[in-house]
Amino acid sequence: MTWDVVTLGEVMVRLTPPNFERIEQARTFQVTAGGAELNVAVGLARLGLRTAWVSKLTANPLGRLIVNEARAHGVDTSPVVWTDDHRIGVYFLEEGSSPRPSEIVYDRRGSAASTLAPEEVDWPSLLCGVRAFHTSGITPALSDACRRTTAAALAAARAAGCLTSFDLNYRGKLWTPAEARGVLSELLPHVDILLGSPDTIELVFGYGGTPEAAGEQMRRAFGLRVVALTLREAPTVLRCRLASVAVGDTVARGGWTEVEIVDRVGGGDAYTAGFLYAYLTGHGDLARAVAYGDALNALKHTVRGDLPWFTLADVGAQLTGRGTGIIR
Amino acid sequence: MTWDVVTLGEVMVRLTPPNFERIEQARTFQVTAGGAELNVAVGLARLGLRTAWVSKLTANPLGRLIVNEARAHGVDTSPVVWTDDHRIGVYFLEEGSSPRPSEIVYDRRGSAASTLAPEEVDWPSLLCGVRAFHTSGITPALSDACRRTTAAALAAARAAGCLTSFDLNYRGKLWTPAEARGVLSELLPHVDILLGSPDTIELVFGYGGTPEAAGEQMRRAFGLRVVALTLREAPTVLRCRLASVAVGDTVARGGWTEVEIVDRVGGGDAYTAGFLYAYLTGHGDLARAVAYGDALNALKHTVRGDLPWFTLADVGAQLTGRGTGIIR
Amino acid sequence: MTWDVVTLGEVMVRLTPPNFERIEQARTFQVTAGGAELNVAVGLARLGLRTAWVSKLTANPLGRLIVNEARAHGVDTSPVVWTDDHRIGVYFLEEGSSPRPSEIVYDRRGSAASTLAPEEVDWPSLLCGVRAFHTSGITPALSDACRRTTAAALAAARAAGCLTSFDLNYRGKLWTPAEARGVLSELLPHVDILLGSPDTIELVFGYGGTPEAAGEQMRRAFGLRVVALTLREAPTVLRCRLASVAVGDTVARGGWTEVEIVDRVGGGDAYTAGFLYAYLTGHGDLARAVAYGDALNALKHTVRGDLPWFTLADVGAQLTGRGTGIIR
Amino acid sequence: MTWDVVTLGEVMVRLTPPNFERIEQARTFQVTAGGAELNVAVGLARLGLRTAWVSKLTANPLGRLIVNEARAHGVDTSPVVWTDDHRIGVYFLEEGSSPRPSEIVYDRRGSAASTLAPEEVDWPSLLCGVRAFHTSGITPALSDACRRTTAAALAAARAAGCLTSFDLNYRGKLWTPAEARGVLSELLPHVDILLGSPDTIELVFGYGGTPEAAGEQMRRAFGLRVVALTLREAPTVLRCRLASVAVGDTVARGGWTEVEIVDRVGGGDAYTAGFLYAYLTGHGDLARAVAYGDALNALKHTVRGDLPWFTLADVGAQLTGRGTGIIR
Amino acid sequence: MTWDVVTLGEVMVRLTPPNFERIEQARTFQVTAGGAELNVAVGLARLGLRTAWVSKLTANPLGRLIVNEARAHGVDTSPVVWTDDHRIGVYFLEEGSSPRPSEIVYDRRGSAASTLAPEEVDWPSLLCGVRAFHTSGITPALSDACRRTTAAALAAARAAGCLTSFDLNYRGKLWTPAEARGVLSELLPHVDILLGSPDTIELVFGYGGTPEAAGEQMRRAFGLRVVALTLREAPTVLRCRLASVAVGDTVARGGWTEVEIVDRVGGGDAYTAGFLYAYLTGHGDLARAVAYGDALNALKHTVRGDLPWFTLADVGAQLTGRGTGIIR
Amino acid sequence: MTWDVVTLGEVMVRLTPPNFERIEQARTFQVTAGGAELNVAVGLARLGLRTAWVSKLTANPLGRLIVNEARAHGVDTSPVVWTDDHRIGVYFLEEGSSPRPSEIVYDRRGSAASTLAPEEVDWPSLLCGVRAFHTSGITPALSDACRRTTAAALAAARAAGCLTSFDLNYRGKLWTPAEARGVLSELLPHVDILLGSPDTIELVFGYGGTPEAAGEQMRRAFGLRVVALTLREAPTVLRCRLASVAVGDTVARGGWTEVEIVDRVGGGDAYTAGFLYAYLTGHGDLARAVAYGDALNALKHTVRGDLPWFTLADVGAQLTGRGTGIIR
Repeated sequence: MTWDVVTLGEVMVRLTPPNFERIEQARTFQVTAGGAELNVAVGLARLGLRTAWVSKLTANPLGRLIVNEARAHGVDTSPVVWTDDHRIGVYFLEEGSSPRPSEIVYDRRGSAASTLAPEEVDWPSLLCGVRAFHTSGITPALSDACRRTTAAALAAARAAGCLTSFDLNYRGKLWTPAEARGVLSELLPHVDILLGSPDTIELVFGYGGTPEAAGEQMRRAFGLRVVALTLREAPTVLRCRLASVAVGDTVARGGWTEVEIVDRVGGGDAYTAGFLYAYLTGHGDLARAVAYGDALNALKHTVRGDLPWFTLADVGAQLTGRGTGIIR
Repeated sequence: MTWDVVTLGEVMVRLTPPNFERIEQARTFQVTAGGAELNVAVGLARLGLRTAWVSKLTANPLGRLIVNEARAHGVDTSPVVWTDDHRIGVYFLEEGSSPRPSEIVYDRRGSAASTLAPEEVDWPSLLCGVRAFHTSGITPALSDACRRTTAAALAAARAAGCLTSFDLNYRGKLWTPAEARGVLSELLPHVDILLGSPDTIELVFGYGGTPEAAGEQMRRAFGLRVVALTLREAPTVLRCRLASVAVGDTVARGGWTEVEIVDRVGGGDAYTAGFLYAYLTGHGDLARAVAYGDALNALKHTVRGDLPWFTLADVGAQLTGRGTGIIR
Repeated sequence: MTWDVVTLGEVMVRLTPPNFERIEQARTFQVTAGGAELNVAVGLARLGLRTAWVSKLTANPLGRLIVNEARAHGVDTSPVVWTDDHRIGVYFLEEGSSPRPSEIVYDRRGSAASTLAPEEVDWPSLLCGVRAFHTSGITPALSDACRRTTAAALAAARAAGCLTSFDLNYRGKLWTPAEARGVLSELLPHVDILLGSPDTIELVFGYGGTPEAAGEQMRRAFGLRVVALTLREAPTVLRCRLASVAVGDTVARGGWTEVEIVDRVGGGDAYTAGFLYAYLTGHGDLARAVAYGDALNALKHTVRGDLPWFTLADVGAQLTGRGTGIIR
Repeated sequence: MTWDVVTLGEVMVRLTPPNFERIEQARTFQVTAGGAELNVAVGLARLGLRTAWVSKLTANPLGRLIVNEARAHGVDTSPVVWTDDHRIGVYFLEEGSSPRPSEIVYDRRGSAASTLAPEEVDWPSLLCGVRAFHTSGITPALSDACRRTTAAALAAARAAGCLTSFDLNYRGKLWTPAEARGVLSELLPHVDILLGSPDTIELVFGYGGTPEAAGEQMRRAFGLRVVALTLREAPTVLRCRLASVAVGDTVARGGWTEVEIVDRVGGGDAYTAGFLYAYLTGHGDLARAVAYGDALNALKHTVRGDLPWFTLADVGAQLTGRGTGIIR
Repeated sequence: MTWDVVTLGEVMVRLTPPNFERIEQARTFQVTAGGAELNVAVGLARLGLRTAWVSKLTANPLGRLIVNEARAHGVDTSPVVWTDDHRIGVYFLEEGSSPRPSEIVYDRRGSAASTLAPEEVDWPSLLCGVRAFHTSGITPALSDACRRTTAAALAAARAAGCLTSFDLNYRGKLWTPAEARGVLSELLPHVDILLGSPDTIELVFGYGGTPEAAGEQMRRAFGLRVVALTLREAPTVLRCRLASVAVGDTVARGGWTEVEIVDRVGGGDAYTAGFLYAYLTGHGDLARAVAYGDALNALKHTVRGDLPWFTLADVGAQLTGRGTGIIR
Repeated sequence: MTWDVVTLGEVMVRLTPPNFERIEQARTFQVTAGGAELNVAVGLARLGLRTAWVSKLTANPLGRLIVNEARAHGVDTSPVVWTDDHRIGVYFLEEGSSPRPSEIVYDRRGSAASTLAPEEVDWPSLLCGVRAFHTSGITPALSDACRRTTAAALAAARAAGCLTSFDLNYRGKLWTPAEARGVLSELLPHVDILLGSPDTIELVFGYGGTPEAAGEQMRRAFGLRVVALTLREAPTVLRCRLASVAVGDTVARGGWTEVEIVDRVGGGDAYTAGFLYAYLTGHGDLARAVAYGDALNALKHTVRGDLPWFTLADVGAQLTGRGTGIIR
């Protein structure tokens, strides 16, 4: 068995109070599972690619809950490393409305995923025949072990001839911009496609200006094939406009999509899934990749949870435009 | 016992996932009942007219659930034909936010209502003394039996001296525009008041231009007394502006109402109920009918379910304008 | 034991249908507790002041539910008068969206709080050492007993050297503007800080013009130290802009805050809490008081229930501006 | 229009915390409507008799909620007297498990129903042609007005040739046994069928011994045609055995039914409905009446709310015995 | 890729009103997926066997919901046949308590699964290398096509050397006992392991007496290797005792397990999964198979939904006995 | 300010899937707060004693949620030590029915409470004037720091003249019986009242025989004033009988109470609260202490969450016996 895409990263159980309640107010939490790289894998699997996800999970009900969710969408979880030790990380999402922004409280320290060492996975055989490998800046930020694992995985992916994809995903609670820059500067030379946002590119690497300019600077600095940057203008907490730009040998920029936000967590991961799907199935056509990324990103904002609950038909309908009336 | 208005049509059980969930995501469905012609009957009964509804239902818990809902609002369901066969149709409503439109998945094939034959109801005695009869384009689209039933009911209504009202309600999943045009062209000569929208008038009959022009063309083509068209501008999935125009011997057009949409299903039926109520109680005053239709349409958009949960006092308050603050 | 602030007023159990349902539609009610003066006490306690609340409650589960909620936020409820008679008032909140405004149905007649007589509380010893006393125009409107209690409490507060604070809170279902003017004209001479809105100032006292002008007229008419008026522009039921102006020896006016409304009940009380907190801890700095009042008012609009579930850190973050993105 | 049965009595909105929560704990209440005599009317209507209910309701959303519920089950509510004054009574049900019994907290003082005066209803024309009239001991206990209304209604029923039915329904929070005995001793001479339990018969009238003996004593004392007494043995809060005995010219006693209690409120009213239905349709056959009463009583214990959500087919199935397996 | 076990059968979406509500009462339905043969596949996959499931589904959100649920538990759904036509069957489960039994209302007519023809699946290649094939008496009862498909699948399984397993699963709403006997008499000669209950064996085939005797008669009549019969004694709707007997070359009978029923649907399928798992991994040890079947059957009764949400560790714990206290 | 009782211990956020769902199945968790020693403090405060609770909490929303819950019941939380580090422990409760026992999954490692060092609290001034101090065997099992804190607190309590109370509360996931015996043998000489169960006494200290004998052995071994042991017979997961025995200078044993279990977590803590309340207010009357402990223990089993939501009136009613009927 081989896969089109393999992704690597931590997944946490997400606990969300309903109805804009504050965490302190909550008498119930809605339970979902999410993590940047699994979100990407789910998006890709739902669009039709054979996808697997690598992580490390504690063998308890929460670990099974996570794996069930991944499998439900068709992601192969056979590469997951199971352990009886450690714990499953948890995060609490407090959903806001203007002028109160949404806020995440993490409780992820000591998670099994943060202990994943390079030698726990046979990377060469795992990645043999795989078309693309994806991970994000969260993974190396989790621990030294995870930093080494990320490096080993990227190296093995390159060696196996995989396209390598990396989402910057800077998390200020895990490391400083300087720490991030240091580690990422060693990893990015092994990366083909970098995904991120102008803000975090500037924060971590200091490249500003237009998105196109920042993307090009990153591209040159690290020898990347493509830099794709998602753009967001959000006048209020519950409304935004989304677009993106991809800088490769050519530059592609999509139009803005107006969004009424139901849940924006995982939007960037949906973008990555849409982008990679179209890139891999479209012979590297950047305009198509941007269009698919933008479509899945916007759609993701309209459903609850971290995962992009959409099919290829949904993306197609979004690309052709369906208006605002009820589809009967 | 006699009624002011009798309506004819199918009602389905509606299953709606909560919180903008996709159907595929749902772990619970909210259960309501709805169908265009019952929605109208409920609106009329709540505004104070004596109203009855004709349909055919399977004698099982879902059939009783539907009848209970109708009766709760004061609609007389004694004309319903009960059967032990067939099934109750179901529809699934997936509520969206921009850029994802709401979507309905129908599972109505084989319903009891779709088997209602003309001879199962004694139309002359049912409609004796009734002031108005209403049905919609959904009914004849359901089956041959229903097409014949619609024709028989309209003919009997005319014979009984009822005002006849008909909502175009074109449903693309039930028939093509050409099929609709063929059947409706035979039915409309028996109709006094036609309700619809400029889009569907153009789609089915090819009459475009301004709403007033399209309405007038329909009026002439089929000898209608009044054509009332609801207008909608929806910049996003959750926001719209509503208005309407009625073309009779005179033309009436209401102002736009800004709406924050909670649930737009049944809005057109609420319009019909408001319009007919005012028309019947206002000696055919079109401006008043348009005002009541617009008011009930807009109000319906602010409550869940297909039904217009409003009283005459609510419509009156809406017509006088209540501002946006809390009414204490 | 002594407190920074003591407030006096009725609290009711609030029953709210979920999901914009009408009361008539409801199959469940969400249960919270709220009342103008307790809302203020909760806000002040959460920001860090030692706060107590005086009222009268029936000793039954609903009375305990209310006291539990007050205590949960750190409000001292030891001054509450308990009785085995009477009842706990209830109010039903129907949440609307444009064009349907939210609406409150009160069922408060015969409540224990409405029977609180001046002699049931030892005001001098209760208020000894307290820095500020707060009540609102709802209290004297409840009954003759409550009117006398309000007068006695304000007099005792003045005698004890407390700063006295009073929210106009005009409720048209309790009395007419003329009745309110009569009673309040006797109470306001004992008040230092008056909170209200331009609309109700004009309705009850006839002072119009700019908020600053109306505030100054009130100030002069009743010898008030400060008049703080909250301003609201609400283009739709679910969107508004908030600001305020305070007129004292100087005049302070804050900027507008854009709000996506989750629940606006208690916004004015949150304003009062923010204002009083800053006023008391800031040596009467009106600009700071306005800023804190505006911040807590706007934040309150983003959470369900009457209470301002915020900390001093939340207010600080709001004052510095946090943007619309997720805080991770 | 005429009815088979007319009932008279107050209905309250019932608020129930879910999941065995205490009222003090509740964050949500389940909302239903219930009152002894409406419960009977609903039971009779669902079994197929034409039934109407008389009461007085405040014209607000809670009043409409109650009427909607009654109509949903086919009860004619046209005799209800509407008022803009007073309030709708509320009761809170706290559901227990052994050793904590369920408990009801009433908040019914000042209800519209408690002000219903005899002259507000045209009893002779209301009861003309009606086969049976039913009310209970709660009604005269509510107020002097209601006591006079009960007397007037019973007298009118007798005059109209109705069978008169009366449920003892002693409520210790409304009056003492001595007060009850005094009032009921004047009403019972106008009653044909008395329903009650051995406990309350003994408490109010002092007649003890076997149920058959107590029933016979009541019968003789007041010239009653039939006394039907429900029997209950409840080893725990959630388990009981039910039976009944009817004493008329003959004596009928049913067997015990084992019950797993979901919600026992309204069980006695379900008994009355079953009993009266069978009595009226069975030419006074007491054994059949007892069997139908026992069946509907036991079935009611298995569904939530005060109302017996059953059909004649359900009662038939219960009478023939369906075992404990799933009916597929 | 090959599997240990392949199962064939229809899955429906199950809609269950919460809290013992009747269907007619429901305002929400809980949504799960279930069908006898998928339930078995899920149980086997969760215990650790590689399992696939064959069926036919309409390609709509309900079809995806079903496949997601199957995949979540590790069942391979790649053999499913997808179609754009037909519908997904639905069933409504009304949960009872004594004396009201639980009841299922089916709405399955016209389902995609009922149209599955033998030639839509390449049975020889699907079953190549598979250890066991399982289906049930529901499948051939659905339609002529399904009857032929069942026969073809069993024949192919025999040809491929699979162990064939068949659950009698008689459904009175699909066919009569005589019809069932006719069809099953042709299928059973291709079956190795038959699962059922003494009641249905007697109803369909007329074999009574002790379970051991009935099993032995079936075994002889159709040349079965093993007949496993589940035994149930249910004094009330919510309590039962479970056991089973397996008749092969030897006879094994397990002890009774006391069960407090949360949801008994799928209990028999859980039995089959436990039985087959132990049979396949235990070299045909009937005592072990009975023990595992009984354990998983009893455990299934304690969780909601049709599926046995248990692991091998859970079954092991049940087999060793864990008492009634909290496991901390 | 001084208190009657001070307790010391960790509190966790408890997450409970509804409706007997397994954790793996959950899509929502019910959120409550609980910990043995806070449970006791809440029970005591609700019965009327002035009570404070000492612990260490992370200053985040979960920490505030816990403190809010404690304060809601009247527990003084001013002694709590707040930190910005560490985390709030969480535990997941899976509720079972026979034959599946309830099960707890702990995720408490690294909690703020487990880092509480003796020097973080000024024990002498905290305990000055306090009548009784209570903690349990969970506290010293959490960490070395907590072990030292427990010892310091008990020593300070003795020095301050407090009655010292200690619940054995053996937790097998925190330490072995031998480790527990070692640590507890050093702590118990500072204890006056020991609470526990025969099972854990035997497991940790090896004292078996009758409860009275085991209690007396413990008493002698460690110089305890009273040993109170709760007794439980649980034929099924959802049914049990409760009693207790207290061994001091005299021996008291209560009768058995039949319990239908809603939630048994915190039952032992409720017992302790009832016992201590009666002991402290009853001059050490053991029979009264046993009666109050048994009553509050049984009542706790009938409500959700760890906390005993009862008043002195509830306990009084339980002691006099209220039967199984509805209290109206």
